[in-house]
Amino acid sequence: MRGVWLEEGRIHVRDDLDTPRPAAGEALVEVSMAGICGTDLALLRGYAGFEGVPGHEFCGRVVQCPERPGWIGRRVVAEINLSCGRCARCRAGLRNHCQRRSVVGIRGRPGAFAELLALPLANLHPLPDAVPDRRAVFTEPLAAALRIGEQVGLPRAEPVLLVGAGRLGQLIARALAASPAELHVVARHPRQRELLEGFAAAILAEDAVPAGRYAVAIEATGGQTGFEQAVRAVRPQGTVVLKSTGCGTTQLDPSRLVVDELTLVGSRCGPFEPALRLLEQGLAAEDLIDEVFPLGDAVEAFRRAARPGGRKVLLQPQG
Amino acid sequence: MRGVWLEEGRIHVRDDLDTPRPAAGEALVEVSMAGICGTDLALLRGYAGFEGVPGHEFCGRVVQCPERPGWIGRRVVAEINLSCGRCARCRAGLRNHCQRRSVVGIRGRPGAFAELLALPLANLHPLPDAVPDRRAVFTEPLAAALRIGEQVGLPRAEPVLLVGAGRLGQLIARALAASPAELHVVARHPRQRELLEGFAAAILAEDAVPAGRYAVAIEATGGQTGFEQAVRAVRPQGTVVLKSTGCGTTQLDPSRLVVDELTLVGSRCGPFEPALRLLEQGLAAEDLIDEVFPLGDAVEAFRRAARPGGRKVLLQPQG
Repeated sequence: MRGVWLEEGRIHVRDDLDTPRPAAGEALVEVSMAGICGTDLALLRGYAGFEGVPGHEFCGRVVQCPERPGWIGRRVVAEINLSCGRCARCRAGLRNHCQRRSVVGIRGRPGAFAELLALPLANLHPLPDAVPDRRAVFTEPLAAALRIGEQVGLPRAEPVLLVGAGRLGQLIARALAASPAELHVVARHPRQRELLEGFAAAILAEDAVPAGRYAVAIEATGGQTGFEQAVRAVRPQGTVVLKSTGCGTTQLDPSRLVVDELTLVGSRCGPFEPALRLLEQGLAAEDLIDEVFPLGDAVEAFRRAARPGGRKVLLQPQG
Repeated sequence: MRGVWLEEGRIHVRDDLDTPRPAAGEALVEVSMAGICGTDLALLRGYAGFEGVPGHEFCGRVVQCPERPGWIGRRVVAEINLSCGRCARCRAGLRNHCQRRSVVGIRGRPGAFAELLALPLANLHPLPDAVPDRRAVFTEPLAAALRIGEQVGLPRAEPVLLVGAGRLGQLIARALAASPAELHVVARHPRQRELLEGFAAAILAEDAVPAGRYAVAIEATGGQTGFEQAVRAVRPQGTVVLKSTGCGTTQLDPSRLVVDELTLVGSRCGPFEPALRLLEQGLAAEDLIDEVFPLGDAVEAFRRAARPGGRKVLLQPQG
């Protein structure tokens, strides 16, 4: 089968990959559409030490399902953490943090930049008919955006700051637009500002962020500068939510955290069902797409996705 | 009047300080006993850019109180943040984070390493007769220890880790001993381990801290190593409480926070009333005293307080 192969910081397209065989409790899914995300670009830089087929934002169609033949033909999206269900963390309800977990396309498990991948039935969510592939492919990052609201009480009476209006930032803005929080966004590129229209109460330049103002700031740039901006922007007893991985080590002055009693919260994967509901109800996402490449042009697609300020680049294995 | 003077990273004892004059709403307090804390040592290294009389852990006796003569003669302790009561933060209930605040002996306000200091009546708490000076002097840091329980839900079914068993760490251990949390403590020095007896369920060597085990870890060393230990020790979705100021910049890998969805919480000043109740009910603290120096020997007292693993060094202005 054809798929993207990541090894030693480079990718190339291979046509000699073994077709995955679903294990017990698994289905074989034909990938319809997959998105390149910041984490995929970080994997190329060595993040998580991953080698194999990357790709964890995708939608597809079940083509084999020995245990539940009724699933065959269903359009699906999938949660990306595969947990053991038996370890202390799984038993404590922390399945996304399972000690023995694999993560689709990130850790010990082939991803979706391929024609096919095997996935546990437990991870699959049927796609509503009203959600086309070009929107469904945003389910996973939109769920990650919704995770913020699960972890942090978003204030109603004062604005929330979002630092970063890239691929994830745009989805966070749209997720928060469905909440009562008034959103201020730090956006670097003109195209990012255009995409925010209707989803942000205010758009700020990087040098115009007030210090010590916000109860909650969300860092979605993955960079040292964005991290510093978010920490500077929150008021005493405020919260900084960190959404980006793979930005390397950063400098932190713990005294600032102590004196102002700040909270830093890391935030990763989120709930699929509310994300699917929002997409079904018409949350726009297709305008966040830059271009769709056939799988064979994955190297070019990755290059395009790495451009500063770029929108979402998709891969279409069956295209 | 006599007092300790801090300037350009050095302290000396002066006998030519002006006697403070209480402003409207203030009382003049004669200092009975004052403690040297890690923050005082950090001030010497340039933390907070403070110049003047340091000292913020103390007890004393009211000797002038034009507006409330009934307070004269009362033994008191005092909260150290002086807020304006009018700014946005004060109005939002964040008085300890007042934008215009001064902090006794730390920021814009003379401290307690002197014979006398002026303090707002609003900051004073009468000392119960049952609490002698040598115990009362621990009220402020004990309140800071109790702040942890105000900010973080301490687990009942699993242990809490405390990294650091210095002056503040010992008080945190004693504060938590009054809660249902089972406490594990990382202690470096033999004397620290002895003092923990009866207050810790387990005492760990620095190289014997399990990784990813604790729901809550409290950092009370103020050092890079302690910070790293605490972050490493918490399990996914765990919380690291930061209690120490003045340790300078540290390295942080935000990816660890994001992937494991960790929370970092800065924690500063705490509630005086519960601290006074604990001291009144017999919470031991006097055994944490290393030595009491007369104010005139402050330079020697600071030197002694800076010894690694040292206990609390007190200054006695009237001694």
